[in-house]
Amino acid sequence: MYIDKEAIARLEKQRRVHLINSLGGFKSVALVGTLSKIGNENLAIFSSLFHIGANPPLIGMIFRPSPPERDTMSNILETGFYTINHINETIYKQAHQTSARYESEVSEFQVTNLKPEYKNNFFAPFVAESNIQLGVEFKEKVDISINNTTMIIGEIVQIYLPENCLHDDGFIDLEKANTITCSGLDSYHKTIQIDRLSYAKPYKEITSLL
Amino acid sequence: MYIDKEAIARLEKQRRVHLINSLGGFKSVALVGTLSKIGNENLAIFSSLFHIGANPPLIGMIFRPSPPERDTMSNILETGFYTINHINETIYKQAHQTSARYESEVSEFQVTNLKPEYKNNFFAPFVAESNIQLGVEFKEKVDISINNTTMIIGEIVQIYLPENCLHDDGFIDLEKANTITCSGLDSYHKTIQIDRLSYAKPYKEITSLL
Repeated sequence: MYIDKEAIARLEKQRRVHLINSLGGFKSVALVGTLSKIGNENLAIFSSLFHIGANPPLIGMIFRPSPPERDTMSNILETGFYTINHINETIYKQAHQTSARYESEVSEFQVTNLKPEYKNNFFAPFVAESNIQLGVEFKEKVDISINNTTMIIGEIVQIYLPENCLHDDGFIDLEKANTITCSGLDSYHKTIQIDRLSYAKPYKEITSLL
Repeated sequence: MYIDKEAIARLEKQRRVHLINSLGGFKSVALVGTLSKIGNENLAIFSSLFHIGANPPLIGMIFRPSPPERDTMSNILETGFYTINHINETIYKQAHQTSARYESEVSEFQVTNLKPEYKNNFFAPFVAESNIQLGVEFKEKVDISINNTTMIIGEIVQIYLPENCLHDDGFIDLEKANTITCSGLDSYHKTIQIDRLSYAKPYKEITSLL
């Protein structure tokens, strides 16, 4: 089936949103926790996280020009700190519910019954039910003029994870941590590992690391 | 287990690379096909794709300052076109092999035995074995000064997918298309759908769309 540029443009808005959001493949999905200067907690689901570099450890995310991400971004810019919390099968419905457009003064922790967790002097709240939690320090804001979105880049400064998920070589077994993935706007998936492959070199057969 | 900023900085380089690449969660992974001005084909695996917007349909990817992505980026900037091809369980080893640092004049299509496919006057080659293929037009290059990486933004102008994977509402069933996901640098996973959830509204119970 072939859909060309004109057919994409002609699609009804919501169909296009579902289609284009599906095309990128499976995505990382996480809950971003923030605290405003005046003490309002905020929690929002994001599926636009991506690795930018390991040294320093940088992670990026894209903000749309509209709510509900508005509180998250203004808290990040105002305070400089946020948390990224992996989503597991136990909390994916609550995680999805954070995408509803609550008023700014409402804490999505409270309405979804997820528990804010403060530790090691980190300013922003972690999600207690999350098995992999990252404390992130804001580093850079990049405006993407082509569609008025914004990229926020942060440095990972605190990592919490179950010790039995960490391999000797630094790889984290996300399945053991029950981390899930998503596709499109609203589909959640668990995973089954197919393989881990050796570092690829020209004209050399790759092997399984399992 | 708690790893703080100082402990991250002290990690041996390859361990840190594996660890930080794992922290973002499951990632979309795809093969990017390009053709240079003088006719050299290039194919490279990327796990840093992300959705930027649906109208216009924009997709982003991050390029490291070093090879092997060099050919892909220079071809994109030189010619303005590239393809993004989903990876399935049949071709993931060949896809992984494209990350080896071949010389510029070597076609990764040829060495991995993946078949370049040209259609509908699109300049860059698609991967014939891929079930979901996107033709993308280069739109914007954003330099990320903090670690010398580069973000490339493109507009999706051609979409190829199996008709039976497309739902009425625009959602694509990626599992039916055999699209896989990855974690870390080298781990490949298939997925099992847990649920599709209704659009979230404040104080309203979300329901399953399945």
